Amino acid sequence: MSDNSFGRLLRVTTFGESHGPAIGCVIDGCPPGLALAPEDFRADLDRRATGKTRHTSQRHEADEVEILSGVFEGRTTGTPIGLLVRNTDARSKDYAGIAAQFRPGHADYTYLQKYGHRDPRGGGRSSARETTMRVAAGVVAKKWLAERHGVQVRACVSQVAHLVPRGFDWTAVEANPFFWPDASMVAELEAFMDALRKSGDSAGARVHVQALGVPPGWGEPVYGKLDAEIAAAMMSINAVKGVEIGAGFASVTQKGSEHRDLMSPAGFASNHAGGVLGGISSGQDIEVSVAFKPTSSLRLPGATVDTSGQPVEVITTGRHDPCVGLRAPPICEAMLALVLMDQALRHRAQCGDVDPVFPRIPGKHEQDV
Amino acid sequence: MSDNSFGRLLRVTTFGESHGPAIGCVIDGCPPGLALAPEDFRADLDRRATGKTRHTSQRHEADEVEILSGVFEGRTTGTPIGLLVRNTDARSKDYAGIAAQFRPGHADYTYLQKYGHRDPRGGGRSSARETTMRVAAGVVAKKWLAERHGVQVRACVSQVAHLVPRGFDWTAVEANPFFWPDASMVAELEAFMDALRKSGDSAGARVHVQALGVPPGWGEPVYGKLDAEIAAAMMSINAVKGVEIGAGFASVTQKGSEHRDLMSPAGFASNHAGGVLGGISSGQDIEVSVAFKPTSSLRLPGATVDTSGQPVEVITTGRHDPCVGLRAPPICEAMLALVLMDQALRHRAQCGDVDPVFPRIPGKHEQDV
Amino acid sequence: MSDNSFGRLLRVTTFGESHGPAIGCVIDGCPPGLALAPEDFRADLDRRATGKTRHTSQRHEADEVEILSGVFEGRTTGTPIGLLVRNTDARSKDYAGIAAQFRPGHADYTYLQKYGHRDPRGGGRSSARETTMRVAAGVVAKKWLAERHGVQVRACVSQVAHLVPRGFDWTAVEANPFFWPDASMVAELEAFMDALRKSGDSAGARVHVQALGVPPGWGEPVYGKLDAEIAAAMMSINAVKGVEIGAGFASVTQKGSEHRDLMSPAGFASNHAGGVLGGISSGQDIEVSVAFKPTSSLRLPGATVDTSGQPVEVITTGRHDPCVGLRAPPICEAMLALVLMDQALRHRAQCGDVDPVFPRIPGKHEQDV
Amino acid sequence: MSDNSFGRLLRVTTFGESHGPAIGCVIDGCPPGLALAPEDFRADLDRRATGKTRHTSQRHEADEVEILSGVFEGRTTGTPIGLLVRNTDARSKDYAGIAAQFRPGHADYTYLQKYGHRDPRGGGRSSARETTMRVAAGVVAKKWLAERHGVQVRACVSQVAHLVPRGFDWTAVEANPFFWPDASMVAELEAFMDALRKSGDSAGARVHVQALGVPPGWGEPVYGKLDAEIAAAMMSINAVKGVEIGAGFASVTQKGSEHRDLMSPAGFASNHAGGVLGGISSGQDIEVSVAFKPTSSLRLPGATVDTSGQPVEVITTGRHDPCVGLRAPPICEAMLALVLMDQALRHRAQCGDVDPVFPRIPGKHEQDV
Repeated sequence: MSDNSFGRLLRVTTFGESHGPAIGCVIDGCPPGLALAPEDFRADLDRRATGKTRHTSQRHEADEVEILSGVFEGRTTGTPIGLLVRNTDARSKDYAGIAAQFRPGHADYTYLQKYGHRDPRGGGRSSARETTMRVAAGVVAKKWLAERHGVQVRACVSQVAHLVPRGFDWTAVEANPFFWPDASMVAELEAFMDALRKSGDSAGARVHVQALGVPPGWGEPVYGKLDAEIAAAMMSINAVKGVEIGAGFASVTQKGSEHRDLMSPAGFASNHAGGVLGGISSGQDIEVSVAFKPTSSLRLPGATVDTSGQPVEVITTGRHDPCVGLRAPPICEAMLALVLMDQALRHRAQCGDVDPVFPRIPGKHEQDV
Repeated sequence: MSDNSFGRLLRVTTFGESHGPAIGCVIDGCPPGLALAPEDFRADLDRRATGKTRHTSQRHEADEVEILSGVFEGRTTGTPIGLLVRNTDARSKDYAGIAAQFRPGHADYTYLQKYGHRDPRGGGRSSARETTMRVAAGVVAKKWLAERHGVQVRACVSQVAHLVPRGFDWTAVEANPFFWPDASMVAELEAFMDALRKSGDSAGARVHVQALGVPPGWGEPVYGKLDAEIAAAMMSINAVKGVEIGAGFASVTQKGSEHRDLMSPAGFASNHAGGVLGGISSGQDIEVSVAFKPTSSLRLPGATVDTSGQPVEVITTGRHDPCVGLRAPPICEAMLALVLMDQALRHRAQCGDVDPVFPRIPGKHEQDV
Repeated sequence: MSDNSFGRLLRVTTFGESHGPAIGCVIDGCPPGLALAPEDFRADLDRRATGKTRHTSQRHEADEVEILSGVFEGRTTGTPIGLLVRNTDARSKDYAGIAAQFRPGHADYTYLQKYGHRDPRGGGRSSARETTMRVAAGVVAKKWLAERHGVQVRACVSQVAHLVPRGFDWTAVEANPFFWPDASMVAELEAFMDALRKSGDSAGARVHVQALGVPPGWGEPVYGKLDAEIAAAMMSINAVKGVEIGAGFASVTQKGSEHRDLMSPAGFASNHAGGVLGGISSGQDIEVSVAFKPTSSLRLPGATVDTSGQPVEVITTGRHDPCVGLRAPPICEAMLALVLMDQALRHRAQCGDVDPVFPRIPGKHEQDV
Repeated sequence: MSDNSFGRLLRVTTFGESHGPAIGCVIDGCPPGLALAPEDFRADLDRRATGKTRHTSQRHEADEVEILSGVFEGRTTGTPIGLLVRNTDARSKDYAGIAAQFRPGHADYTYLQKYGHRDPRGGGRSSARETTMRVAAGVVAKKWLAERHGVQVRACVSQVAHLVPRGFDWTAVEANPFFWPDASMVAELEAFMDALRKSGDSAGARVHVQALGVPPGWGEPVYGKLDAEIAAAMMSINAVKGVEIGAGFASVTQKGSEHRDLMSPAGFASNHAGGVLGGISSGQDIEVSVAFKPTSSLRLPGATVDTSGQPVEVITTGRHDPCVGLRAPPICEAMLALVLMDQALRHRAQCGDVDPVFPRIPGKHEQDV
């Protein structure tokens, strides 16, 4: 078995290596009738792309999406949507020196242990290049969620190393290269990133992801819980080491009387649950926080072994991000959108004719404060 | 769609409500030849059970497991293993008063929004009673992992509210009712729990889960990553709000040079990755940390609405745990064991004849320190 | 992997051996709100049961269905429906003599080759006893199809050995023990079966299954085609060796101008397609024909080998059906109903908001002739 | 949900329309280390291709396979294998006249009823063009089965309309354009096909498919039976209306004493079961027979309706095969190979360490006669 597909009813299968001829995906299960054109992918692929500022890897990929199937006269037909992106700026020679070495903190060692044979160029299949197709698939899910259900998915970077936003304004997020919600700190971040890059080291980050407008009822107890699938979706992204829903680890030190979100006809009084109760959406905003480790691709030398078991010192000379979390918000949004669309379809399958007779309780939004 | 099955090749399907006649599960895909008897389930079900001390719910269930199929002359046959546990101590009248009310922090509201019709007795399907069958299924997985691969899975409580262990000794864990790794703090915990119970409030907890002896190579990139499936498995447990692998959220403030686990022929120098690189086990210990929220079932009154949308005050009078995390270690172990056994079978399917020619690098264990 | 589950969105998992303590199933994904009671299972289980006439096996099972979960106050809740049937008339001693022999035409040899360890009592898991739970699950699917979509599923025996109906009347089918559509031939069939039973030999049969009222649009191209899933469903029944949709093998000698079903606003002119075009229901009746081999459990001695590889002669002394096809109609109906309900839910998931604007073309029914 | 993937552990996902820019597939789960090059696809794609003789459609496609991923230095890596074939000879204008008409016997009506929006060019997704990718994926499965298990898969046409082979010789099959096993009848077939083509009508056919060398033990009872999955695989091919395993429908008129395949240490005495007992391979040859309907694309006018519900007469003017069954053998082989490889991997997952201690019984081959 291998597992390059994501989702149950909206099923995305990706393929492709970092330095192979192309990457691509097949999106199976998208309802018919959704307007879709190649230019729809532009914005989010640019948000994820490297080489846009000096703070990311300097690989410059065109990321042109070709729609191979599933769309006729500008609308989806219900058949599988094939998407293809040619790799245009791979520099495999950067990796020639390390093909026989296991880079610490990378998947080199585990891929070779598992498969016995691997493509070492640029990390091959384990490269974050694969997330390009997640973002592309996420574009389709976001469009459908917005048009069919009025759901909006968004994300920001909520921590870089020790830096946390002092203020919080969603409108600031897309106006700086760090997806940072506090405009007053952008210069500080730039200085931090410049110093980091010069040091040859890397930094971790935290990303906050949110879905607004999710109706109550999405999520499949007990092993297809909405939060369980969100956790898997986020943890499947390269470099992720932790996932929280709502209060997350802070709930360990909360009292039950503090954590439980009281309700009244006017709405929920708080949202410590992060929009999920018993694995099912409550109608409140879905709130997710994700930890990204610092990349292990460093110019600083590190001890490792080679494929013959001898000790060596490795220096990673490819083009890399000093803080991979800085490009992660569109990826996290895409994964959340894919989970939500999949769950929406699953809910429609089983409960499509349930007629809710009791009132819906409004959610508590941050902006209500 | 509904989703009461877990796993791909080792597939566990559970059924049953908290106050229905019985709960049960079907384990499909277990290899033939594994020794299995009803008494194998005793130890772990007792570790999970309520009513053993004053610090847990006072529901007393016999938890007698009947093996209905899949075992002949004491060994599994490869056919589905049906397990049944009759509910013997349900007190549904405790819930009569709240059938028409949505308990805050519970799944009452979301189940009714989703399905339009629900079993309110004791939380019905959303009750933690369901985890009994996870533990039962986990017993099978633990046995197979130990006998076939020498893998050991274990867990402890690593935080209750603000209390953290001052020392750490795995041998202490099973010798106190709190799965606590510091024997010197047991009296302190008892006092804390007594006060908590009297207050009518509840507390959160953190559970640490570990697998020793996992060989390198288990895990299916990219959407069936070992850590992604662990995250889903843990988040699917009632009351869980966060999951970390290895350094987890601490990796946000680590430098890359600090986080990456250097390697030498003598072994890995650290285990910040938590035993997973690129979604595949590295041969180091698998390290997972899980956040449990404080239960929302409190004797303290709370504001909510009823099914006709009117504001009401609710008091939960059923038998509940003041700290659900205290019974969670066997559940977390079971879920980790189920993920690992499933991944082991998947790995064998695709890579069963891969012949690793390079050396295996020893893991860094805590006990090495 | 093992594969004891059927269906994608309506997922039925069965367990249990012929002579184990019980057989059972879990039905996952049934929409909430469907009325369901233990007595709903009576009629179809009796239609499938042995021991009702001298023409079937003389095993007398009570076949009492216990609903363990998923139903509250007489209606399904959307959570998994657990069903249990205790085995009450197993006579394992009948098999003591043949535990170490491979009965020709049976699964004895293949189960042992696959699993290395098996339950030989009454065929264990490979026994047709398992089809009891298919029929039980089919009852739920039939109810939902009838109530939600007005779909009716029915079956008859359309051939026994060389005997074929000379006339055809659906109302005759349930009025004789052979599900035979020609009342005038019942005496002839009884004589044939009596002679067959006395001879110690067995006979094959053909079953015709039909679904009326299926709307156009059900079926998932290209690998989840309605006819492909029907073929798998039928072929998964014990003793089935062939499946036809519509004209079936007769289409080999048809001309295209004869086979294609012409259309007019008044309706389809014929139904050689059997209600499926391109894997999707056309709105015509679904027509399926299934071949059942003669059972291999005979009183006539036959050459085989034992588990040590020595030649032996085997005589099957258990209670067996001289023509297993005679009890197959309710099983075939159940499988067709399960496929249709599953496809209905899948169709609703992807195309639940498609608004057909062109006219629906009426189907051609046999009774129109 | 949509369903454009095939297999459980070897998972093939196809995409693409007949007249879109390209067709392609992703093969996920192939073990690492298998030698694979673009030229491996040539032979089977040519065997399936149109335009090679006057007896098939005159569409001339290059069918050049580009390997996009999953292969490094000539061997599979265990990551998904992406294959792409550009469409080079689509003539969509042929279909301009019938875009608003439902061709009888085609999927036009059902696709539009299901999806509300469709690509009508050349049949779009419902075209047999999709089978190109099945054949490509089948090449991988055939290679693996041959190299790893010595299994050979082959097929021939065993009937065209009323014509059946008078002799049978496998070596003749690949030496004529009809995959016909009787060289003495080739002239007769050519004359038949010429007359058929001139008449504007079409003919049905029967294809026989066979796997030699399959070891005992492959197949997953009870819903993943080897024969059940073969039935689904064959019925998922365009134009198939019936599937038989072994004796198939002939078993209806067989006696049990005739049908059951007796065994001795020297081997099975016959193979009426077609190599499958209880859903598991017996070690005998797998024998499958498949009915192909006559294509409904005719130059002869036929009555139908248009998308506004009005009666019209339709003539299909595109390039079509007068007997689609004549190109089906490589497709049937591919589907059988994909089922077998998938089952081989599943068997290895669950029973990889079963050690058969009893003797294997040789199969009965036709050539033994």
